[in-house]
Amino acid sequence: MAVNDLNDLFYETLKDIYYAEKKLVKTLPKMAKKAGSPELKQAIQEHLTETESQVSRLEDVFAQMEKRAVAKKCEAMDGLVKEAEEVIGEIKDPRTLDAAIVSSAQTVEHYEIARYGTLIAWAKELGMDEAADILGETLEEEKAADEKLSSLGSAMINQQAA
Amino acid sequence: MAVNDLNDLFYETLKDIYYAEKKLVKTLPKMAKKAGSPELKQAIQEHLTETESQVSRLEDVFAQMEKRAVAKKCEAMDGLVKEAEEVIGEIKDPRTLDAAIVSSAQTVEHYEIARYGTLIAWAKELGMDEAADILGETLEEEKAADEKLSSLGSAMINQQAA
Repeated sequence: MAVNDLNDLFYETLKDIYYAEKKLVKTLPKMAKKAGSPELKQAIQEHLTETESQVSRLEDVFAQMEKRAVAKKCEAMDGLVKEAEEVIGEIKDPRTLDAAIVSSAQTVEHYEIARYGTLIAWAKELGMDEAADILGETLEEEKAADEKLSSLGSAMINQQAA
Repeated sequence: MAVNDLNDLFYETLKDIYYAEKKLVKTLPKMAKKAGSPELKQAIQEHLTETESQVSRLEDVFAQMEKRAVAKKCEAMDGLVKEAEEVIGEIKDPRTLDAAIVSSAQTVEHYEIARYGTLIAWAKELGMDEAADILGETLEEEKAADEKLSSLGSAMINQQAA
């Protein structure tokens, strides 16, 4: 589809992150299953629940635009997940595996942080204040998830060293 | 290659970001060429110079490990760049194009922020304090580049609205 203005770009980017979040709903359970640490397993499962809400929020934003909720293949998220699966597949040692899972999950969180940051700026510019608020809720969740992963990663490393 | 411990995982992740940085050295000039705003063009060109230094810093870290500097195909960066090229290719309006370039560049910066954050934590754990310091310099540059892009993005949007 031709992208002629910021409104079109907003809609295309919304479709991109909609695909990405739906892909995560399928990917996170696999990551949780692989995780050895109970805390990491639980953190991923909790983020799965959040991700399901984030999908619904995106559907609310599509509805506000009076547009169909459509997922558009997101090459970036496909690449992030493929890379995560590859590195995770190479590791047998449980603690190293957990470190790799944390690291991969953080690359995914950062992709989302970048995307939602942009979408919020554009929504405000387009006068879509309610959409900006909805997307802002998700952005805060993504940032919190990233911080949680950082502290879990550090705790696991320190435990290993102890 | 089999990844048996944190040292192996560090080395594999170093190869991944080495590929990613080298890919950016090739990609940033194309983005700068497409950018309409002189400020955006300049910001990308400045970040290209930084990226070249970041490649050298990674080579220093490989040398400290007494390992060969090897690039390992990074599916994530390939996906990020492919997505950026696709969206940029769909846009003719110069200001919308600039907004898309800023947004795509931020997804790249955030990938790097996630990767360097992890590498620094692991370097410290592995007792590679000098490597952690070198990687820390790059992390600060990536964060500054992301902030610069955010403020450029906002300024361009406001200019468009004025």
